[in-house]
Amino acid sequence: MAANKNKKRLSDLRSAMKNKGVDALIVPAADPHLGEYVPDHWRVIEWLTGFTGSAATVVITSRFAGLWTDSRYFIQAEEQLQGSGFLLVKLKVPHTPEYIDWLAGNVKKGKKIAVDGRVISIGQVRLLESALGSKPDISQDLISGIWTDRPSLPSEPAFEHPLKYAGRSRAEKIEDVRTRMRDLGADFQLLTSVDDIMWLLNIRGNDIKFSPLLLSFALVGADQVLIFTDEEKVPGTVKAAFDKEGVVLLPYDMVSRVTASLPDGSALLLSPVTTSASIYKSVPRKVTIMEDISIPTRLKAIKNSTETGNIREVMIKDGVALTRFFYWLEKNIGKEHITELTASARLEAFRMEQEGCMGPSFETIAAYNAHAALPHYGPSEQSDAELKPQGIFLLDSGGQYLGGTTDVTRTVALSMPDARMKSDFTLALRGTINLAMVKFPLGTKGFQIEVLARKALWDNGLNYGHGTGHGVGYFLNVHEGPQTIGTGSSGDMKTIIEPGMLTADEPAIYRPGEYGFRTENLILCIQDAVTDYGTFLAFETVTLCYIDATLIEISLLDDRELKWLNEYHEKVYRTLSPLLSTEEKHWLKKKTEALYRQEH
Amino acid sequence: MAANKNKKRLSDLRSAMKNKGVDALIVPAADPHLGEYVPDHWRVIEWLTGFTGSAATVVITSRFAGLWTDSRYFIQAEEQLQGSGFLLVKLKVPHTPEYIDWLAGNVKKGKKIAVDGRVISIGQVRLLESALGSKPDISQDLISGIWTDRPSLPSEPAFEHPLKYAGRSRAEKIEDVRTRMRDLGADFQLLTSVDDIMWLLNIRGNDIKFSPLLLSFALVGADQVLIFTDEEKVPGTVKAAFDKEGVVLLPYDMVSRVTASLPDGSALLLSPVTTSASIYKSVPRKVTIMEDISIPTRLKAIKNSTETGNIREVMIKDGVALTRFFYWLEKNIGKEHITELTASARLEAFRMEQEGCMGPSFETIAAYNAHAALPHYGPSEQSDAELKPQGIFLLDSGGQYLGGTTDVTRTVALSMPDARMKSDFTLALRGTINLAMVKFPLGTKGFQIEVLARKALWDNGLNYGHGTGHGVGYFLNVHEGPQTIGTGSSGDMKTIIEPGMLTADEPAIYRPGEYGFRTENLILCIQDAVTDYGTFLAFETVTLCYIDATLIEISLLDDRELKWLNEYHEKVYRTLSPLLSTEEKHWLKKKTEALYRQEH
Repeated sequence: MAANKNKKRLSDLRSAMKNKGVDALIVPAADPHLGEYVPDHWRVIEWLTGFTGSAATVVITSRFAGLWTDSRYFIQAEEQLQGSGFLLVKLKVPHTPEYIDWLAGNVKKGKKIAVDGRVISIGQVRLLESALGSKPDISQDLISGIWTDRPSLPSEPAFEHPLKYAGRSRAEKIEDVRTRMRDLGADFQLLTSVDDIMWLLNIRGNDIKFSPLLLSFALVGADQVLIFTDEEKVPGTVKAAFDKEGVVLLPYDMVSRVTASLPDGSALLLSPVTTSASIYKSVPRKVTIMEDISIPTRLKAIKNSTETGNIREVMIKDGVALTRFFYWLEKNIGKEHITELTASARLEAFRMEQEGCMGPSFETIAAYNAHAALPHYGPSEQSDAELKPQGIFLLDSGGQYLGGTTDVTRTVALSMPDARMKSDFTLALRGTINLAMVKFPLGTKGFQIEVLARKALWDNGLNYGHGTGHGVGYFLNVHEGPQTIGTGSSGDMKTIIEPGMLTADEPAIYRPGEYGFRTENLILCIQDAVTDYGTFLAFETVTLCYIDATLIEISLLDDRELKWLNEYHEKVYRTLSPLLSTEEKHWLKKKTEALYRQEH
Repeated sequence: MAANKNKKRLSDLRSAMKNKGVDALIVPAADPHLGEYVPDHWRVIEWLTGFTGSAATVVITSRFAGLWTDSRYFIQAEEQLQGSGFLLVKLKVPHTPEYIDWLAGNVKKGKKIAVDGRVISIGQVRLLESALGSKPDISQDLISGIWTDRPSLPSEPAFEHPLKYAGRSRAEKIEDVRTRMRDLGADFQLLTSVDDIMWLLNIRGNDIKFSPLLLSFALVGADQVLIFTDEEKVPGTVKAAFDKEGVVLLPYDMVSRVTASLPDGSALLLSPVTTSASIYKSVPRKVTIMEDISIPTRLKAIKNSTETGNIREVMIKDGVALTRFFYWLEKNIGKEHITELTASARLEAFRMEQEGCMGPSFETIAAYNAHAALPHYGPSEQSDAELKPQGIFLLDSGGQYLGGTTDVTRTVALSMPDARMKSDFTLALRGTINLAMVKFPLGTKGFQIEVLARKALWDNGLNYGHGTGHGVGYFLNVHEGPQTIGTGSSGDMKTIIEPGMLTADEPAIYRPGEYGFRTENLILCIQDAVTDYGTFLAFETVTLCYIDATLIEISLLDDRELKWLNEYHEKVYRTLSPLLSTEEKHWLKKKTEALYRQEH
């Protein structure tokens, strides 16, 4: 049934292509902001193909219709595309535009290739141009005419993010950006990433699931900041505050008209990764375009002292919620019917009891046994497994708090693990610990220290196939750069790790078909020491939740690792226990007891 | 006196510039092969300015004459440039063309900037063009007319590198290169790096100090290999062998005429880093230029099994020479007059006693006490220090053997070291050991594992300012890529470490004005294990020479490090002792005794 619907849509789209003389159409999984989080209005691929994964590209010709996605979605895509008319094409390397090679090899020169220029970055279009030797047509919107019941853009109201959370006023932040613009010689800074705009203007919205974003563009000039958004979503108090500080509200779809009228000879700073081809091409030729990640992207990654203070507070709340959840799970498993989905809901309820918690920061990965071997598993009605007192349970979740965003993974044993499970868990945990313990000179980039998270696994012929750490926003996106700790295709190779940056630390081990283990903490970069050899930095592990000792093979930890673990557990207990009930407190005491190695 | 000579040359050069209408002249420290090792004929900067360092760029205008070099040469350049008319300009970041910024800021548009296109890469010229917005004149040779007593090009004969050393015949290697050329769609491979040509044709020469190179270019086509060199330097037997395999000898200076006559529509593979602007610009427009590091550069980095077998043999010889030297030093220091230079000579004599040793592979760094704090110190007549039984002695040296190239550093105590010295030495040594012990999946690049060499130092607020490891040639250049273990400006970010690659492992610590410690071994990449998680690789430490236990603080080593050290010393003794005299053997036995930690 569902598939018939998709076949019809594909056929309608092919008719539209024929009418417009389009030989090949590219459909990216993106909205005009080109970030990770896309509202339903822009989920064209899901509507067209039935595939619900977040990362994909579709290419359609008169004889071919294919969907490219990466290995984490192969099984899901295989099922969801059944009978849809779309072929699954497996990406060899995640996050790469392999569809371009297909186009280069299968579409003859001179044929017309089209893509909606509003939802593809200028960087991607350049790749297309250089591989195809011709310019794609970016002016066509073939979807809107066919997608008659398309969801409208979200209309939730925006709200102020108060200074006690933001730590720095809108006026100060705007001045910070302008100072940097003057240093760089930029007259205008175009902001297309919504998180940049939220940070700059100390506002938040409700347009995107899991991220408190108000869909908008912005343009920072010397005197004014223009924000392009749906005026109706902005409350009067916020408007009044904007007025005072030269922040001008304009309609959301006016951004290209403003970029098209920038004065000759002016210099515009924009990011080729997050600026759409449509907006880019609207800029007059006599405007000098400077390309780099945006100034707010850099500035907001370095949390100020108000923010880091709030993050530490939020981590206590999150730790209390997690402790209550795991206590509840241990007491009730095998007694009541608990599934991956009901467990997720229970955890969310515990989080929502905490003051300032606004909801989850991403879709919870609640994974029982073999499901835990899928790094990006999210339970669905179909896959939902019942938790029994047997095996393991991996829980990767996070909360959006007014004072910060959390992201934490724990794996717990639901029965006594065997020796290989303990060894696997402990080797991956050593990675989490060793990355947390590193000290490094200022100037070090994330990819330089990543091996510390992998070394214990590598020593034993093991590894994991994803990066080790993503940047984390502040009551914004749970994945938020520019820094990463990784070396792969999604790894950042340029950004140094600086004090104030908050990053995930999540080494793992997966045994396909059996189980998976991941221990994820957030680590805050802090200054350690200044010596004759420079300024040295370190990480403070800010996540507060016990690590299941049942899964730890103590003999595999060295002295420093064991000391770290015992000190961590001592801190978890000391910090969380005053906020727990007597039973929870006693239970946590046991969970955080110091471990000792048998002396041989 | 010397300086007056340089002032005269500068003034002559300015006259020549004026005659030719040149407003600014760039003089790079390079020859037409753009490698690290430059024959006297091309040492224009030394002749012009008096500066003898290897890395520099000179820029001359009518009112300015400056020499850019990096921090290791600041003191030396300050002295040598005194009264020469040349100003020292200190590079902020080593190996970067900061002089281009100076030109962009100080030479008006429309002025004529010249550089001898034969000794600057096309890559550098592109940087110049994009920074200056105009093309430099690369057709001028202003030096030859002034430098009347210029040394001629070397005329030493070439010789065959026999198959028992090379492991793979000339015909096989040429076929390997052609296979790869076909895969890439290249009709021609231009070789400008002399080491590539030596490897491909199984020959060696004597044109460059420390490296057995025959100055030459080569062009590999589908049927012929053209080698451009001084025919008189090639013996009849080699010529005859060349004839049989379609290797054609042509005059050295004919290369540009041949590249200028390549057929329309053909594809030429060349490296923009090692191809001069002159040669590059000679290529007809209708030839497709493919840019990448050369095929031989990749192939020769992976030593074949004959080569790795010979390398292990050569390491024994080198180890015997080093053991004899350190034994001699310990017996004679304080008794006879020994200086850095006489010690170097003595070491060279011990090496030359070994069968197949053809000479040193680079200028020995023999550094007493504070001299050891200068990473690239080389003793001169002026600086030469007498070695006394007090302090430390750092010795970084290598040999060219028919069966391989060595590079080894040891630091020994000449009296009892204090606690900080022992701690410093041991922390740097832990880096050498930890890099040697790493296991890593195939696909890993050198920069990913470098932190293991620095971690023990970083943990203590210490560091060193150079890379950790360079590739090492096989009876070729002691510094020979493409792989490196490092992240700095000279670090390679693309090349994966593969089985057969030979790389240096040389963490260090420098206390300016006091002392420096460095322990350098060569490590050979080998396969370790194949698991469900891929192919894992490891390193075999092939250098064989004891490490001075007097300098080791055992309590700072963990169990694995101590085990590595004791096993290494056991292997050094077992392998070298059969080749030593009874006294030397007894002495080495003590030097390699197993160390035990005091249990607390």
